[in-house]
Amino acid sequence: MANKTTTKRQTSEAYVQEIVAKARVASREIANLDTVKKDAALRLMAERLVKSSDYLQEENEKDLAAGKKSKLTSALLDRLTLTQSRIEGMAEGLEQIAALPDPVGKLLDGWSRPNGLRIQQVRVPIGVIGIIYESRPNVTADAAGLCLKSGNASILRGGKEAIHSNLAIHKIIESSLSDLGINPAGIQIINRTDRTVVKHLVEREGNLDVIIPRGGEGLIRAISEMSKVPVLKHYKGVCHVYVDAGAELEMARSITFNSKTQRPGVCNAAECLLVHEDIAAGFLPSAIEQLKRAGVEIRACPRTRKIVKGLKIAKPDDWGAEFLDLILAVRVVASLEEAIDFINTNGSGHTDAIVTNSLAASNEFTRRVDSAAVFVNASTRFTDGFEFGFGAEIGISTDRLHARGPVGLEGLTTYKFVVGGNGQLKQ
Amino acid sequence: MANKTTTKRQTSEAYVQEIVAKARVASREIANLDTVKKDAALRLMAERLVKSSDYLQEENEKDLAAGKKSKLTSALLDRLTLTQSRIEGMAEGLEQIAALPDPVGKLLDGWSRPNGLRIQQVRVPIGVIGIIYESRPNVTADAAGLCLKSGNASILRGGKEAIHSNLAIHKIIESSLSDLGINPAGIQIINRTDRTVVKHLVEREGNLDVIIPRGGEGLIRAISEMSKVPVLKHYKGVCHVYVDAGAELEMARSITFNSKTQRPGVCNAAECLLVHEDIAAGFLPSAIEQLKRAGVEIRACPRTRKIVKGLKIAKPDDWGAEFLDLILAVRVVASLEEAIDFINTNGSGHTDAIVTNSLAASNEFTRRVDSAAVFVNASTRFTDGFEFGFGAEIGISTDRLHARGPVGLEGLTTYKFVVGGNGQLKQ
Repeated sequence: MANKTTTKRQTSEAYVQEIVAKARVASREIANLDTVKKDAALRLMAERLVKSSDYLQEENEKDLAAGKKSKLTSALLDRLTLTQSRIEGMAEGLEQIAALPDPVGKLLDGWSRPNGLRIQQVRVPIGVIGIIYESRPNVTADAAGLCLKSGNASILRGGKEAIHSNLAIHKIIESSLSDLGINPAGIQIINRTDRTVVKHLVEREGNLDVIIPRGGEGLIRAISEMSKVPVLKHYKGVCHVYVDAGAELEMARSITFNSKTQRPGVCNAAECLLVHEDIAAGFLPSAIEQLKRAGVEIRACPRTRKIVKGLKIAKPDDWGAEFLDLILAVRVVASLEEAIDFINTNGSGHTDAIVTNSLAASNEFTRRVDSAAVFVNASTRFTDGFEFGFGAEIGISTDRLHARGPVGLEGLTTYKFVVGGNGQLKQ
Repeated sequence: MANKTTTKRQTSEAYVQEIVAKARVASREIANLDTVKKDAALRLMAERLVKSSDYLQEENEKDLAAGKKSKLTSALLDRLTLTQSRIEGMAEGLEQIAALPDPVGKLLDGWSRPNGLRIQQVRVPIGVIGIIYESRPNVTADAAGLCLKSGNASILRGGKEAIHSNLAIHKIIESSLSDLGINPAGIQIINRTDRTVVKHLVEREGNLDVIIPRGGEGLIRAISEMSKVPVLKHYKGVCHVYVDAGAELEMARSITFNSKTQRPGVCNAAECLLVHEDIAAGFLPSAIEQLKRAGVEIRACPRTRKIVKGLKIAKPDDWGAEFLDLILAVRVVASLEEAIDFINTNGSGHTDAIVTNSLAASNEFTRRVDSAAVFVNASTRFTDGFEFGFGAEIGISTDRLHARGPVGLEGLTTYKFVVGGNGQLKQ
């Protein structure tokens, strides 16, 4: 038994080592592909995905059947499903990436030094990127497309419940690379579902340049804990909507409602509503009435409960909680200052919004709220690579280093300095 | 005994916790200081450092006396010494930082979306930065100045051999902050010399935003291994000079000589010379003759040894070695291609230079050599924050994420997205 385990572990390790080594070699080639070639590959993938939708849906059916058998929740089954329109959505995502400017080779800055040295800061790919994700098969195409366009080799590791769908999508991607004469090891997928593979992957320090986990907090924490490779991540989205004294009430009501209910299970949905005391009595009754009609459970502070009767009281750990559900914590605050401090203390640095017509309040809020995305008079649901115009997103980062907020092509690059001289020597 | 250890450990931990907590509070204040105030503080520090040079040299004497007693090498004693001119150098560094543009609040990018959302990407401070360094006391002023100007709170931890010098410099810095009404916890120094303090510091994940270790590879690896906080670092500098077939021989000779000998103990000194076979016979004899006259030990490949007799043969581990000494590995290569592959395989991604008059070779080398800084016709010794015009540097990064190459003010910042709307809702 001990021997068997050892043998299995070695095999997984060798498997991962081989994939990473092939990716490293391919990364040098992918980094130097010209834009026309990368875009042609992206468009070919898009075209073939749509043409192959019958095949993709057949393979997806296998995952769905297995998922039903293993009693996945209906939410998980929904995420797993590849409909015709979702396949078209993947293809459209790849087309959009193809249409974006190539970030590689972009001159970020350039200057001359008194001694005549000319310094240029040039965008270059990161190298080899590992993407670890859960049940949505469309991540396979999104992630592969973004990594390719940004000149990186990628290693994809999806959830085991989506393995047939992911392998089918990858097969189309791989054949598109090969048919255009691009090294197919530039986009590889892990075809094993055992967890030791992930462990070996995140130990490849120096060979894998970054790991991007996409999924729930549990997955992300587990990977960050194990990983020797830098991880680009967000743990959670505890987003606030603050309705300022200077808010237009109808706008505040619709932004609150949209931020909470438009899709409650995602990281950019609002989890907490803060309301300035000056307008609480005028705002809260109708806003809460609308939320309740949509099935939202309100967990309220004592002051809110005085204004709207019959609400459940918020417990201490409801502040700062990521419900990912039709639940909203509601609190009356005495000032803009209190709202900002509350958000900086209880938020997760993801997305927070103010609704106000006051320029001063807007400036103060955007300057002092320390989150990746700070909104004025718009729904928190817009923190998203598509909505920001990045074509697609590889994820959202609440880290402070490298990339913050929605991460698109630029977040998948680094830079180098190219320095030109004519014989300069250090004195 | 066990009890005593436990008590001591808790005390160190409590000490670090208190410092980090004070830094976090101060960081919100430092982040919002206006440029005029930050620059005034930097100039006041500079002025007071020069005025206090007697005091600084007295305190430095204590470190030097202790260092001699504990038999530090002369190289270490030299690094430790605060001469009048080094004190003026520190002050000048602070003046230069004051003269640089404030990175905070800079609009990095901005665009509108079809739905009318206006997205701005704005530079903001990282937050709380820990700097862990070794024997050079001037790092205390450099690091404090760069962190302050970039709006970050800093926690400084210098080598124990420089403790009196560092505390003296910090005392002047701290009084300058206080006298201008700035929270002195914005720049704190660890006044304990026990190692457990460092361990506790690097465990403050979530409270400390980044650790920047400055020193030898041993220090940096030890910190990276322990740290739960992201580390911005370079392990080593294995820099190459490649003399291309199209090089001007006199320029190649002087760049090689300068890169190796101008200051051999630092990370941007050259450790390996690659020479194209077409010019090896014309170049190597005089170049090696000059290097040997300066006391450089040559470790050569077989082809080099055929051209210049009597050279020591390079062992396999001399390729890719960081000598930090008057030693140079020398190798003849058959092509530009071979040189690029050799550097990408054996280098450390720090700094590599080509000497050539060929535009094609220059373009190929700068595009394909995957290092933080790639030079054409200049000494590798210029990879340095001062030489790049950053005013000073907090360090050099060979990491690929966040910051690469010399790290100045911009590397100490992150960004946030500020999004303005007029009631936009996600459909």
